[in-house]
Amino acid sequence: MWALATPALVLDRKKLKRNLEAMSERATRHDLDLRPHLKTAKSVEIGRLATAEHSGGITVSTLREAAYFIDGGFRDITYAVGLAPDKIDTVAGLQGDDVWVNVLVDNVPAARMLAKRADTLGVAFRAFIEIDTGDHRAGLTPDAEDLVAVAQALDESERVDVRGVLSHAGHSYRAQGADAIAAVAEEERHGLVVAAQRLRDAGFACPAVSPGSTPTAVYGKSWAGCTEMRPGNYMFFDLFQAGLGTCGIDDIAVSVVATVIGHKRDYNRLYVDAGALALSKDASANDTMAGAGYGLVCDMAGQPVAGVRVTNVSQEHGWVATANGGDPLPFERFPIGSRLRILPNHSCLTAAAYDRYYVVEGHALVDEWPRINGW
Amino acid sequence: MWALATPALVLDRKKLKRNLEAMSERATRHDLDLRPHLKTAKSVEIGRLATAEHSGGITVSTLREAAYFIDGGFRDITYAVGLAPDKIDTVAGLQGDDVWVNVLVDNVPAARMLAKRADTLGVAFRAFIEIDTGDHRAGLTPDAEDLVAVAQALDESERVDVRGVLSHAGHSYRAQGADAIAAVAEEERHGLVVAAQRLRDAGFACPAVSPGSTPTAVYGKSWAGCTEMRPGNYMFFDLFQAGLGTCGIDDIAVSVVATVIGHKRDYNRLYVDAGALALSKDASANDTMAGAGYGLVCDMAGQPVAGVRVTNVSQEHGWVATANGGDPLPFERFPIGSRLRILPNHSCLTAAAYDRYYVVEGHALVDEWPRINGW
Repeated sequence: MWALATPALVLDRKKLKRNLEAMSERATRHDLDLRPHLKTAKSVEIGRLATAEHSGGITVSTLREAAYFIDGGFRDITYAVGLAPDKIDTVAGLQGDDVWVNVLVDNVPAARMLAKRADTLGVAFRAFIEIDTGDHRAGLTPDAEDLVAVAQALDESERVDVRGVLSHAGHSYRAQGADAIAAVAEEERHGLVVAAQRLRDAGFACPAVSPGSTPTAVYGKSWAGCTEMRPGNYMFFDLFQAGLGTCGIDDIAVSVVATVIGHKRDYNRLYVDAGALALSKDASANDTMAGAGYGLVCDMAGQPVAGVRVTNVSQEHGWVATANGGDPLPFERFPIGSRLRILPNHSCLTAAAYDRYYVVEGHALVDEWPRINGW
Repeated sequence: MWALATPALVLDRKKLKRNLEAMSERATRHDLDLRPHLKTAKSVEIGRLATAEHSGGITVSTLREAAYFIDGGFRDITYAVGLAPDKIDTVAGLQGDDVWVNVLVDNVPAARMLAKRADTLGVAFRAFIEIDTGDHRAGLTPDAEDLVAVAQALDESERVDVRGVLSHAGHSYRAQGADAIAAVAEEERHGLVVAAQRLRDAGFACPAVSPGSTPTAVYGKSWAGCTEMRPGNYMFFDLFQAGLGTCGIDDIAVSVVATVIGHKRDYNRLYVDAGALALSKDASANDTMAGAGYGLVCDMAGQPVAGVRVTNVSQEHGWVATANGGDPLPFERFPIGSRLRILPNHSCLTAAAYDRYYVVEGHALVDEWPRINGW
């Protein structure tokens, strides 16, 4: 089955499509454009599938992604990390005839530098103002004194179009259960609507109102006043999301294929050729799923082997053991040279170690899709 | 200073050379070949510098590294991860006239598969037997019943040369202080010598005896019976090693340059465009250095800013705050658009996010060296 050199990143096309369709339908039902965040997938092929029923707008997390997706034919891209002033010229260089890289600011100095540089270069930009709706990472709170000042600083150049407001409700990752996540979603929606109204009251049209996170996209109830959504992780999901209740284990579309390279029977464990680089050292899934370790072990058909985990990693080694350490590991199921699949804790970080997806459907290897990494 | 797009991985050439020379002298003083592990650096340029005074043999952690270093002119490479039987043919394909990819086994099934495949392919292999000298990751303990059986299984083919024994004293990373690390080094040496003697008693010449870890290489006292050492992290060092006492903060040769993209004064923090992917989520340095967070913040000259850390990360954002959270952050030193450098927790993982080193000396950007990643 799939004669792949291990470790390898495998993408289950059926699960991917199911995840994409569910989110697309959700956006359509709420009368929203789906502007998927490609920070997880970083693949033109997946970007095309994800936007099939929508405007074709996407979200990215790096300018290298922006360049790659522009090469792939995408024309309306939101770069959803606060703009470093030194990147303004790079954004200008990426844009072209009807190709836009929308940028994000949350402070007056950056807004002013953008406006000034737009005039110096003679280049038009589209800017979002980032709103902090409770995550307290980046962004201005909806009631922040500086909110209108940022819009006015952008407006110092006629070349800068204040597109609207954008948030990422990262605190949905810390919510427990559907109701708590729905409450975060409402907080995100309400914060954005309040901020947009303040900008409109100050004379800015603010046509775009953009919330975005996978948990709030799944559990949000009302989207009144929003124009789009920007989830990203939902394409693949992962153990963190499964623990949060945003997906089931069976919805996780990516896994790492590894080979058993040794048995350590005295210690009731074995080891595989997928370690910290192949899986990432993100252990956050353990916050939502006790005993997730560095990933759940599945057989090659993708069925979890009950209670078996990657319990530790070094650079190129993964330790496989029972979650509680006490139950005997079924060594007979894992002879030397046999293969297994590992469901990732955090697919965004795991996928970032690979330059391609091996796309599978059941027992068939059906395609190979490249992905971009780095900056 | 260095007009680099951020985040960028910067390598201080003076510190690199100082680290390389210190280890080279240590190996020479102990009459050992230095077979550096290139799993951290993954750079031909660095490999050449590291082996300048030695045999030219190196160690790698993936077969992609092996292929890359063979392209770079290296001819004697030890692949120091237990061999997955499916990789035997890849190793055979990489080898050529006087080009060797030495492999590692620690169990009879893998040894037997290697011997059988060597005869089927008509290809010669050089094999090490992995010894567990206390880390309990991979390897056979020096007194393991199977030790001679593995050598005999390899010996089932005349084409397989049993080169010797190899260990990685990973438990030195869990030792506290120079004396404890020296004790681990002695345990490693003694275990290898015992295993080698058992093999010799059984009729195997076992010419190579190979210990390897940065802490034991730094603090080991006797190397009697060993023929080489295989440290790797020492080229760059990192906060984990500094916390362990293996290096000083000033010896850390790599850092990540990031740009300040926002201030969050209400929360006494700011954020930069280097997050989980740019720094890695390895938090292990906090085990040896309280409050290391995800990296120490330095000014652009490389001087640590007292008490200032990356305290949290998301995919492309790093939170910068004071280590204790209470002391006020000196925002005036970090205006929007300004740059800073971050010393990594674990340089092996941080470097793996980048495809090149920007090589600097003082204020000068002097070179750009590619590196390899993936499998």
